[in-house]
Amino acid sequence: MKHISIDVIETWARFYRANFINCLSGFKSANLIGTVNKSGQPNLAVFSSVVHLGSDPALIGFINRPLAAAPHTIQNIEATGVYTINHINPSFVEKAHQTSAKYPVEVNEFEAVDLQPLFIDNIIAPFVQESLIKYSLELVEIVPIKHNNTFLVIGAITNVLIHETLIGEDGFISLEKAESMVSLGLDAYFTTKIKARYGYAKPDLPIKKII
Amino acid sequence: MKHISIDVIETWARFYRANFINCLSGFKSANLIGTVNKSGQPNLAVFSSVVHLGSDPALIGFINRPLAAAPHTIQNIEATGVYTINHINPSFVEKAHQTSAKYPVEVNEFEAVDLQPLFIDNIIAPFVQESLIKYSLELVEIVPIKHNNTFLVIGAITNVLIHETLIGEDGFISLEKAESMVSLGLDAYFTTKIKARYGYAKPDLPIKKII
Repeated sequence: MKHISIDVIETWARFYRANFINCLSGFKSANLIGTVNKSGQPNLAVFSSVVHLGSDPALIGFINRPLAAAPHTIQNIEATGVYTINHINPSFVEKAHQTSAKYPVEVNEFEAVDLQPLFIDNIIAPFVQESLIKYSLELVEIVPIKHNNTFLVIGAITNVLIHETLIGEDGFISLEKAESMVSLGLDAYFTTKIKARYGYAKPDLPIKKII
Repeated sequence: MKHISIDVIETWARFYRANFINCLSGFKSANLIGTVNKSGQPNLAVFSSVVHLGSDPALIGFINRPLAAAPHTIQNIEATGVYTINHINPSFVEKAHQTSAKYPVEVNEFEAVDLQPLFIDNIIAPFVQESLIKYSLELVEIVPIKHNNTFLVIGAITNVLIHETLIGEDGFISLEKAESMVSLGLDAYFTTKIKARYGYAKPDLPIKKII
């Protein structure tokens, strides 16, 4: 195996290093985040940094890049307190990736990339109609990460839209069947294939395959 | 589609809800984190919450559950400032999952689950010999998340161990070829299959498939 120290990585060209480091941290879930600004203007952007924080309360985090690089989503969330997270499926992955283009603030990415906004009940942020699994959140806290000017945005789940047939009898959701995608690096998208589910591990018992 | 509000989710049984919420946030990269305590006693634990924070500086985060539920990894990182993150591959995924058992603090999980620790140079935390992609980190900051007593642990990459053949000419790492696994929910592991890589998106250009 090759041993690469950070001193060497720091000499690499910006794009090569960004590809490498973004891949090194592994596969991520591929999501679109939907918001509106105070005037109701929608915004839609692809994010690969959604992280599970806890089930009770049901808290989800995501990392927003520095304000200079990615201002719209976080500013809308700060202004309205509401956003949606929508799984990306193969049928619209190209459109989803296209939302990463730096559109001017007045452009509605739903229109620019041809995805359908879905508004339900009194949730002011748009869902993505085409997405098979999606949920809305209420902002809990924006935690600034001072070392690189990014932000951990923490939200509490408020509503879930999902096909009931995807939910197993133990609450497990078949994201493989839904074809929720994973992303890698800056620009790659994958589907998945199950290897196994294992039983709850205990120190004195051998591991048990349950699927 | 079924619309499920948080009021309903809160009435669900604990394990069903944990499965559901853990799946809802999507696929995650499956990693083992290696540490030692101040006496050099190794610890190894599976984590599914690694998140990319930035490439320059190269910062990676992960979420550590509350201290009462998962004290060993975070306490070792706090004590020594050093840890390793190791991608999980299919050849040892059962052993990796077994590290989630609540072993007493004096148990060395490498021995308990039969994985080989690898120590290199002056890095005091053990890598997982069997893992095809792995890296060491230096602790940068532990950010407490007050809403559920979890922690965002931020580290700076210091060293990477990887087969050179996995690195593409643009720095992209073929995690599909390495069979780095993704996890879902509490207990499921998947391999991946590439759908596409797309070019850097621009507002006035159609999306371009590059693989």
